Amino acid sequence: MMQTTIKTVWVIGGGTIGCGWAVTFAAAGYVTYVIDPAPNASQTLDEVWQAALPTISKIGKLIDNPSAPKAVSTFGEAESLPDFVQEALPENLSLKQQVLSELEQVISKDVVIASSSSGISPSDIQSKMEAPQRLVIGHPCNPPYLMPVVEICAGDDTSPSAMETAKTMYEVLGKTVLVLQKEMPGHLINRLQSALWREAVYLAGEGVASVGDIEAAVTEGLGARWAVLGPTSVFHLAGGDQGLEKFFDDLAPAVEQWWASLGSPTLDQPTQKLLIEGMQNAANGRSPGEMALERDTLVPQIIQLLNQHKQSQPQGGT
Amino acid sequence: MMQTTIKTVWVIGGGTIGCGWAVTFAAAGYVTYVIDPAPNASQTLDEVWQAALPTISKIGKLIDNPSAPKAVSTFGEAESLPDFVQEALPENLSLKQQVLSELEQVISKDVVIASSSSGISPSDIQSKMEAPQRLVIGHPCNPPYLMPVVEICAGDDTSPSAMETAKTMYEVLGKTVLVLQKEMPGHLINRLQSALWREAVYLAGEGVASVGDIEAAVTEGLGARWAVLGPTSVFHLAGGDQGLEKFFDDLAPAVEQWWASLGSPTLDQPTQKLLIEGMQNAANGRSPGEMALERDTLVPQIIQLLNQHKQSQPQGGT
Repeated sequence: MMQTTIKTVWVIGGGTIGCGWAVTFAAAGYVTYVIDPAPNASQTLDEVWQAALPTISKIGKLIDNPSAPKAVSTFGEAESLPDFVQEALPENLSLKQQVLSELEQVISKDVVIASSSSGISPSDIQSKMEAPQRLVIGHPCNPPYLMPVVEICAGDDTSPSAMETAKTMYEVLGKTVLVLQKEMPGHLINRLQSALWREAVYLAGEGVASVGDIEAAVTEGLGARWAVLGPTSVFHLAGGDQGLEKFFDDLAPAVEQWWASLGSPTLDQPTQKLLIEGMQNAANGRSPGEMALERDTLVPQIIQLLNQHKQSQPQGGT
Repeated sequence: MMQTTIKTVWVIGGGTIGCGWAVTFAAAGYVTYVIDPAPNASQTLDEVWQAALPTISKIGKLIDNPSAPKAVSTFGEAESLPDFVQEALPENLSLKQQVLSELEQVISKDVVIASSSSGISPSDIQSKMEAPQRLVIGHPCNPPYLMPVVEICAGDDTSPSAMETAKTMYEVLGKTVLVLQKEMPGHLINRLQSALWREAVYLAGEGVASVGDIEAAVTEGLGARWAVLGPTSVFHLAGGDQGLEKFFDDLAPAVEQWWASLGSPTLDQPTQKLLIEGMQNAANGRSPGEMALERDTLVPQIIQLLNQHKQSQPQGGT
């Protein structure tokens, strides 16, 4: 299915990720339905739509007078069949398999289905499908209307054309598409994220610093730099003019020693308690909703800044 | 030594970190000497001073008409004795011990010495000192004039007053000071950084994605968010209104599974080669110097943005 012929998108599941996707598609001009049986699905979707539009106007693709996405309870209630499906159900393999098998009875065989799964293997998801070749992973960073990155990944039975369709679709939305060359639990984003978090949890558990100070090591130190330089680039620059090569000559053994000393904590009850209490102190009276609002205020501004810089570069480098 | 009586600062070592510290102290009004026998030390220091001033004027402490820091080859050439010392020698324990023991012959016994070491234990550094109680770790993010964070850590023999002096000193410079409660190789910053990098290296080595795509997962996805939310806050918000508590109820086992699957690569020759080549592609023609210039252009803008937001918050939350 060529991108230009895609008019209607179905988003399966109206949770945080599903609504985030739906407003992204709708803002870009696609006729968008969220399929979710929850009684408050329509209201939730409308709230996300109102909240997301200012952000999308700054850093996403927003057509003039876009139609709001609609929430419906069943496949049958959507007024048009989909040309592209974004699955955003809870992270539960058998639930995903069951809903996709019902979906396949309703939609045309050549419609690509992208799963938002943050960690389940695409080969597992597609293993019970009638047309498994159409299933790809299309995993966004949360919230999808705000974060530029989408990672896509094929399963064993995925066709190259399904990957191509998903890639083009997300590029039309203005996303940076990362193409995984093989399946891996947690793909790229969540593996990287959980690697950082594991060490943060270890340091808190060992009493090296408060949760708040560990958060600050990232928000006041590493984060702003990582918005500009990836983890390998950081060490590339640490090598001066000769880059990584010099860095390895000087410091490869030291890095391997640090790696060997990194922690392997568990999320047992005492650790959970420590983190919950530490987070409460670090939040300093802010509710998760207020913190999310700060994120949605500041992250688009940072991304805008990075985009402006990128557009000013003749070679379009990162 | 009270902060208000500190007039002269010596920075021992005129490399990247030493020069970065020296310009930070000098801009804030301290009489600053860099002690380094290298013949080009003066020129290097002057280049960093010229390059750093615009950045410091935006996000650091800059007095009117500050005097440039001076580079001298030996302790004896400095025109005034120090009231505070920032050691910024290469990461080599015996070198640090030897130079500090020579330094102690020259300076007053109550002068605090802060070591910029990114990973060596303060107890080891102070173990051969005459006045070990004055030695603290004062480790900046690179470059020190740009990044807000400094982590400080006591060794077994460090006095509380030395920690207090260092903390106040860095706060006067406008830094966010993280106080480590115990020694740990790599402190906070480099442990967190190397935890992320380890998984990035693993994913590249396994061929899951190109170095460039892994970098983009951070620069286009995780980085901007980490500039606003620390690694624990990210999951706190993933739990919605009930925060981490709900997140653990839903996903603690999944996170532990991801943790168990994270990689433990080595920096053997083939891995180094893969990273060097992958970095070359990702750099897209930019030299390390050009990438550093992008960092020095963009990171202060991001930090300014975050600072403006913080100052607008009644409770001064992160």
